[in-house]
Formats: sequence, C-alpha cells, structure tokens
Amino acid sequence: MSRDVAIIGIGYSKWGELWEKSMRDIFVEAALNAIDDAGVDKIDSMYIGNMSGGLFNGQEHIASLMADYLGVAPIPSTRVESACSSGSLAVKMGYMDVALGLSDVVLVGGVEKMTDVDTDEATYALASAADQDFEVYHGITFPGLYAMMARMHMEKYGTTREQLAQVAVKNHFHGSMNPMAQYPQKITVDAVINSVMVADPLRILDCSPITDGAAALILCPADLARKISKKPPVKIIGLGHATDTIALHSRKDLTKLNATIKAAEAAYKMAGVNPGKIDVAEVHDCFTIAEICILESIGFAETGKGGEATASGMTTLGGKIPVNTSGGLKSKGHPVGATGVAQIGEIVNQLRGTAGDRQVKDARIGLTQNMGGSGGSTLIHIMEVM
Amino acid sequence: MSRDVAIIGIGYSKWGELWEKSMRDIFVEAALNAIDDAGVDKIDSMYIGNMSGGLFNGQEHIASLMADYLGVAPIPSTRVESACSSGSLAVKMGYMDVALGLSDVVLVGGVEKMTDVDTDEATYALASAADQDFEVYHGITFPGLYAMMARMHMEKYGTTREQLAQVAVKNHFHGSMNPMAQYPQKITVDAVINSVMVADPLRILDCSPITDGAAALILCPADLARKISKKPPVKIIGLGHATDTIALHSRKDLTKLNATIKAAEAAYKMAGVNPGKIDVAEVHDCFTIAEICILESIGFAETGKGGEATASGMTTLGGKIPVNTSGGLKSKGHPVGATGVAQIGEIVNQLRGTAGDRQVKDARIGLTQNMGGSGGSTLIHIMEVM
Repeated sequence: MSRDVAIIGIGYSKWGELWEKSMRDIFVEAALNAIDDAGVDKIDSMYIGNMSGGLFNGQEHIASLMADYLGVAPIPSTRVESACSSGSLAVKMGYMDVALGLSDVVLVGGVEKMTDVDTDEATYALASAADQDFEVYHGITFPGLYAMMARMHMEKYGTTREQLAQVAVKNHFHGSMNPMAQYPQKITVDAVINSVMVADPLRILDCSPITDGAAALILCPADLARKISKKPPVKIIGLGHATDTIALHSRKDLTKLNATIKAAEAAYKMAGVNPGKIDVAEVHDCFTIAEICILESIGFAETGKGGEATASGMTTLGGKIPVNTSGGLKSKGHPVGATGVAQIGEIVNQLRGTAGDRQVKDARIGLTQNMGGSGGSTLIHIMEVM
Repeated sequence: MSRDVAIIGIGYSKWGELWEKSMRDIFVEAALNAIDDAGVDKIDSMYIGNMSGGLFNGQEHIASLMADYLGVAPIPSTRVESACSSGSLAVKMGYMDVALGLSDVVLVGGVEKMTDVDTDEATYALASAADQDFEVYHGITFPGLYAMMARMHMEKYGTTREQLAQVAVKNHFHGSMNPMAQYPQKITVDAVINSVMVADPLRILDCSPITDGAAALILCPADLARKISKKPPVKIIGLGHATDTIALHSRKDLTKLNATIKAAEAAYKMAGVNPGKIDVAEVHDCFTIAEICILESIGFAETGKGGEATASGMTTLGGKIPVNTSGGLKSKGHPVGATGVAQIGEIVNQLRGTAGDRQVKDARIGLTQNMGGSGGSTLIHIMEVM
C-alpha cells in the first residue's frame, strides 16, 4: 500500500522584477523559507518545476544546480517541465516519491527568472509552450491563441467583454490583500476594457504579467506529519494529470479544455469528492478567458456559464466558492515554473487558516488547477486539512 | 509494498544527422518501435528525457507535444531534465510510477534533436549543463572542463595519453558491430592521438559527437511482464540517483565523480550485488577521460587505475567486464536526452541475448551509468533478466 502524503511547509521568494537577483538566489530563498516553515532539519530529495531555464537564463541542469546552491548535494534532485504547469508536475513527482517510500522529507520547488531577457525574448520563450513548428513560426503567440478561445466563447455562449474584465477585477481585488502580489492594485471593469489592446478581444489587463519568482513546499508521509508538524498538515487527497493536443487547430472545440476536464475527473475520483465539496480554489488565470473556461471544465460552472458565474460574485471572496484568493496569476504574478507550487501554497495557507484578510471561512478542502500552454497539459491537486 | 518493475520493450529511431526529420518525428519513431517490441496495445502514461528542446529547437512543453503526436493524449506525460542524464532520470520516474501502481504500462523515452542549430549554438546549448554564471560566461565549455579532469588524472595517477585513446579505440571497435552506431569506424590509438586538438589533452577522437536520436522503453509490473512478454523481461533491481556540485571549481578532487560514487552505492545496495556480479555495463563516455573516472567510481577499477584497466582489455568484449558494447556515446552517438534510455536498451539487448556480434556470453546482470554535465548528476540502474 502506498503512503498518504502531507504538506508541512510552504515558502516563497519575493516576486516581481528582481533584476538584482539570479535564478539560484530566488530558488534558495523560497526553499529555505519552506524548510523553516516546516521546521525540518534535513531533506531526502528534491523536485523542481522550471519551464525554460534554457531560453530565459542559458541554464539547464537546474535540479543539480539548485541542490548544490541549497547545500544539499548529493541528494537526488529532479527537474520537470510541462510549460506553465511545471510547478504542479513537480508536486506530483514529489507525491510519488513520498507515497512510494523512497524519501520521507521531500522539497518541491518551482522557479522562473523571466526578466534576464527582454520582452521579445520572453515572449519567444513562452511561445515554446505552443507548437513551434505549426503555430509559433507562423506568427502567433499566447495572447493570440487565447484571444481565439475568447472570441469563440463569446460567439458560442454570449460571454461578454465585461465578464472577461470581471475575472481581472476580482483577482486584483483578492491580490490587493496579498502582501506578495506583484500587482496589488485594485482595478475596475472600465480600466480593463479601456486598457491597451494586445490581441482582440484581450487587452493588457486581461493578461498575466512576466514575473521573477520561486515557491517551495515540504512534503512528507501523513503519519510523520502528525508527529512533527507544528502547523496543521494538509493532505493531498486527489491528483489528476492529463494532456491535450498542443496546437489549438487540432481541437474540435476551442472553448473546451479537455486536459483540465480529464484531470479534474481523475482528481475528484481519487479524492472521493465532487465540486460542491471544494471550499476554495486556485486556477490558472493566465488570461481572463482561461479562468472562465476552467470554471466550466472543473465543474464550478455549467458549460458556457463561466462568465456569468464570475459576474455573479460566486468566485469572489465571500461568494459560494472563492477562486484565486491569492490574486491569481493575474495580480500575484506568473513566474511560470513556480506558479503551480505557489497555487498549492495558497491553498495550504487557506486550509491552515493563515490567509489573513483573504481567509475563506472554515475552509477544509481546496483545489488547484495548473495548466501548460493553451491547455496541452493540466494538473489538478485536491487537498484537505488534517 | 511497492511492485517490482520490468522492461518489456525497447525501440530506437535512426541516429545521426537527421536534417530531414523533426524532434517529434524521431521520438515517435522510437516510441512506436518500443511499443511494437513489447507487443502492448495501450500505454497508461509517458515520461520523456530531453535536455534542451528550448535551446536546440525553440520547443518546450515536450511531454504534451509527444503524447499528442504519438496519438495517446489525454494520458499523463512528463518531461524531465538533468542535462545528459535526462534519459535515465525519465526511467527512474517511470519506475516510480509503475512501482507505486499509478500505471501498469509506461512508455519511457528520451530524445534530442541537436542539428537544427549550428555547432556554435549546439556548444552553447550543451554548456547550459555547466554553471553558466561561474563557468561558461567566463569562456569554458565541456571539452575544456573534461580536459582539466584529464590533466589532473594524468598528473595525479600517471594516466597516459595512450590510455585515454584506448577508451575511444575500444568503443569504436564495439560500435563497429552495432548497426545503429553513428560512427561505426574502427580507429587506432595513433589516429586518436594525432587527431585535431580540442582542449589539451583531449582531441576530437576523445569526444563524443553531436547526434539526433531517440530511444524508448516499455515498463510494466514484473508480474504482468511474466504474463504478456514474448521476450525475456528484464527487471530493474537497483537504482541510484545523486548530485554533486555543478561547477568543477567547487570540488575537492577533479578526478572524483562523487555523484557517481553515491549513486553506485545506492544502486548496489538496493540490488544486493557488488561490482563483481555485473556482467556488462554501459557508462557515460562523453569524453574518454570520463569513462576512466567512471570505472573507478563504480568499483570496476581501483582509484587511479581506470586507464590501466582499459588498456588491459578488461572492458573490451571478451574481457572480464565488457563496457559500452553498444559503442558508447563515442561511437554510437550522443543525442543527450536519449542517451540514458539507449544505454538501458543495450543492456536489455544483452540480457535478452539479442546483441548479435557484440553479445556478452551468459550475461544475466547489467548496469548503466548516465551522468549530466561534468558529473553534477548521475543515475545508475542495475538490471537482471527474469
């Protein structure tokens, strides 16, 4: 039988444009914070999510580099990549390691240092999550891909420009209560719909930013967590991982995130819960339209009704199921390899009851949805406080 | 209790300079060959080793891309990276997945498409396995790093220029019997020591080449392997994974591969065997000096005696313990993300008794050693025919 796995520590680096720090600096900062939060004095292995150290930093071999700079070599250290879902893929690998019994205490981190290159180069690096041969070389990058999804959703279901904006307004409202948010400013629907056009209908305030940042977690067997954790441990009770076509042109329906639908099914089944049992969630709002499609794909809203659900306040703090209380990718920032790890960190904060002004009352079960590219990969984690 | 894991299928793409094929083409070719070899009609999940799709191909999100092009989405698909040991790291993850019982039939692949860029760009991409901030930006790349290791080994232990050459001569002799070798030419000691200087004392025939290629394996529980495999299944009985400082200047002794020493200890312990029980091995001869240091680190030769052991014929086919019967990285080629998977493929061939002219008689237990960078990461697998 495999072992139950719990999260007993979370840590972050500062997030933002950190021109004075290197990738290894911010990773080590987050890792030490997580180790300190867990109160452990050793780790047995490491997993790191990073999307493109190659294109952003000219650096691969990232797992060994980080083990070295954290001072924990020769322990095993593994880097995983699944574009913007690299972070939660690292969590899955750490979960497997602990569940199987290879390691007792595992550090799972995510890091991306995105501002060492200019914006054009960053856009190229991010576009490597799409199909370079059949999408990117022909001129499209991510705002354009998500713009097509948005346009299709508006045509098919009547989703409005204002509903898209409501996603950003809500997430910036949440982010205004998160001290680590890169863009904690509250914004209005008017501000979003009058901001600079990026790819019609998406404007700059529909898009998540470029961010330097790292996040880390400490995982261990649930039995050990009961003994050593001074804070309420959080158990991983559901996990789903699925893929979809990498290119949008291969999909039957641009508004459907099939990898998210499949991963959600698997995670709900493993956890033995349905969407109605989730008290709080962090989802991958890389663009406003993404959150709307995700709400529908994870069973929080009916198909076509994600925009209406958002506008109704259902997903705002105080609503039926608050989504992205951290501020989401939109306000908190989106260091792509770190995002999935940070999402889980926010859920741990919520389930521990330590989320401050943005605390969801009596939250016991939380969910994260983290995806790569235009939805070619998705990981979903469901967690319950022990 | 975890499940025993067996390998029931192996497959390769063509290896060489494959200008007419893309990364996805060669991966799918290897994957289909492995699926065909195993005789399975479905796979449950995938793991892929790839070092730098970003720098070589402008393509990340590789796991989903390959699942998509292989036609198996929405199954979970994970890419791992540990520089030149990415391939065997993928095998470790596949092992964990099957051992834990998440999946029954797992495809593990490795791929690198290195000739889409010119040689300077390839050298830069490969150098991302070293410490960019503190090694590479100051002007050194891998031939220079390994040249320092060679020079130190010669100074400290009296290893000779001819002994280095013997590694290349042996591996090209083995490669001459491998139909898939990129450079199957037999070479002489004179040819090596008179070839073009790259970084003193290493010459071009001391260096492994740049290669496009892919390799794949099918893993499943040993119990299932007994039922469904038409060929002798090969069980993974030992697995070690360790890290070391990424930069050479942080090491106390340039001739010691600490990650390999630690990984070997762990693998031998798990397998319950010592080096004397290994019938055949594939090791990471990225440069001739590497094989000499590895022989010492995995207990095949005493410290400082790796050169002598090679010159004695101990590691040549027909010797006490044949090493790199495939031709090694040197003759067979070194598509960096695929190498670790291909090493295991050669051991499976040997343990099945299907290695043709290069068959090691009565081979029952084999070992692979695969490392990243200048030894900052190492994975060792020990396998036994069932």
